[in-house]
Amino acid sequence: MAEVSGKKWVLMVTAQTPTNIAVIKYWGKRDEKLILPINDSISVTLDPSHLCTTTTVAVSPDFTHDRMWLNGKEIPLSGGRYQNCLRELRARASEVEDEEKSSSAAGFACLVFSLAKPKNVKEDQSKLSSIARQGSGSACRSLYGGFVKWIMGKEKNGSDSVAVQLADEKHWNDLVIIIAVVSLRQNETSSTSGMLETVETSMLIQHRAKEVVPKRIIQMEEAIKNRGFPSFARLSCADSNQFHAVCLDTSPPIFYMNDTSHRIISCVEKWNRFEGTPQVAYTFDAGPKAVLISHNRKTAALLLQRLLFHFPPNSDTDLNSYW
Amino acid sequence: MAEVSGKKWVLMVTAQTPTNIAVIKYWGKRDEKLILPINDSISVTLDPSHLCTTTTVAVSPDFTHDRMWLNGKEIPLSGGRYQNCLRELRARASEVEDEEKSSSAAGFACLVFSLAKPKNVKEDQSKLSSIARQGSGSACRSLYGGFVKWIMGKEKNGSDSVAVQLADEKHWNDLVIIIAVVSLRQNETSSTSGMLETVETSMLIQHRAKEVVPKRIIQMEEAIKNRGFPSFARLSCADSNQFHAVCLDTSPPIFYMNDTSHRIISCVEKWNRFEGTPQVAYTFDAGPKAVLISHNRKTAALLLQRLLFHFPPNSDTDLNSYW
Repeated sequence: MAEVSGKKWVLMVTAQTPTNIAVIKYWGKRDEKLILPINDSISVTLDPSHLCTTTTVAVSPDFTHDRMWLNGKEIPLSGGRYQNCLRELRARASEVEDEEKSSSAAGFACLVFSLAKPKNVKEDQSKLSSIARQGSGSACRSLYGGFVKWIMGKEKNGSDSVAVQLADEKHWNDLVIIIAVVSLRQNETSSTSGMLETVETSMLIQHRAKEVVPKRIIQMEEAIKNRGFPSFARLSCADSNQFHAVCLDTSPPIFYMNDTSHRIISCVEKWNRFEGTPQVAYTFDAGPKAVLISHNRKTAALLLQRLLFHFPPNSDTDLNSYW
Repeated sequence: MAEVSGKKWVLMVTAQTPTNIAVIKYWGKRDEKLILPINDSISVTLDPSHLCTTTTVAVSPDFTHDRMWLNGKEIPLSGGRYQNCLRELRARASEVEDEEKSSSAAGFACLVFSLAKPKNVKEDQSKLSSIARQGSGSACRSLYGGFVKWIMGKEKNGSDSVAVQLADEKHWNDLVIIIAVVSLRQNETSSTSGMLETVETSMLIQHRAKEVVPKRIIQMEEAIKNRGFPSFARLSCADSNQFHAVCLDTSPPIFYMNDTSHRIISCVEKWNRFEGTPQVAYTFDAGPKAVLISHNRKTAALLLQRLLFHFPPNSDTDLNSYW
């Protein structure tokens, strides 16, 4: 592509990156700049044909500065996050002219992939994950399908804080994930400032990171390896709740769940207790969407029935119109 | 009173016991039967002329069995709690006939006081607190006015798990407490079963009890001694939030706060941040009532204004009609 002659060229590349759902949560950094976490985390990567981030990158020597549009709306690139990513990529770009400028979009993993493509970046996956991490920590887990562990690492420069695939997308493909949008309201607290405040003020977060999560990581890897749904579900639910517990233990407290989230949890907990063994796992991130992971297609169908019964689409407590 | 002759007598005693509001929370027992807590707690006793529990005890040799009415409704006395209290009291009663049976009402502190009266129980206050404790742990803190600490104690038999007064009701009497009833719905999880489940399943509760609370108790005693409102408020809010955090870390999770509680907290936090120093402290117990402690009468008036602005009495989000 570098052969394009003169200055009248635009190079465009489009990439799609899947979304990942953490089942052992990442919350808290030990290095704000390099984005190094205080604990390992594990996620499931969603099938990109169902849900993913699409990023198009256009590169041209005629562009005078970096610009970025998110869902059609231009957003400022002044934040350190984007600059970090762009700088890392530029530093690695070898075969495209120096004067060239580029811009990009949502989903840092996607950004990294897209940028890596036109610039012919020659990096192994774990190096890419380290670059994506510096844009948004959890993005690094989206570089693989299936089940992915983001290892916190020990090095000060973050070189060993990388994502590794625990199992590929075929290993446990009867799981069905349902995402219920509880509220369309934007979060009041971004995850970046939220986790910073938790690390600074919570008296429980270090105990979670050092004593609780390491054990859960081992148990979760085991559950994934053996496709042990009861253990997988218990660990996912407990870790989601503990993540929200340390948010609540933050000063001022952070609330990402609302009454509807609570009702969904109670509904799933009651069902699981009634059946004697978990049918569905729930996990909630830094926002009011419920992620429900069911054992198989049959339980997924039953789950949808229950959700529609408890949250009928036209009632006041409709999941979408709750707020 | 023991001189009443024959069998045709009824002895009635009415006692009033104040309500106490924990600012460092009691959550979790190390002994379910003796009701021995896993950490110290500190409370403020409300002025009994404003809010208290009234208990009338009637004793007669004609009564064939124990009966109890709570708010006019008879409730079963079969629970171990009531029996413990009654047994303790009977064991201590010396000057009234053996065949006498007695019954009682809500507020175990009140029960103990009332029962202690007709039976001429000769006990010091800390012994009484130990009896009240066995009915409902936190009740022991209501036996004193002002600020009260319930010392967890070390003894296996609970003899040193008693309430002591930190400061009397005159020490810091410009504090004004406002109680906002967020919901009239009964709690789904009683505090008895809730704290048992937390101790059994939360990975954070022991860290709270052993590492966090002991330091907070010292800081809170200091704040009370010096009437240091900023420190008092910060500790109260942080401990309330941490108590709800360990409830959320319980499996299945326990939710005592709802969206309205969250809105009240956000409202107070924003106000406190705007003023640069805390004006109001909030604390929430095992139910959806908000307890708001303001620095003085002036901030209490401003607080009421704000509450009425954010929760207008006739709107849908009225504190009382929320559910």
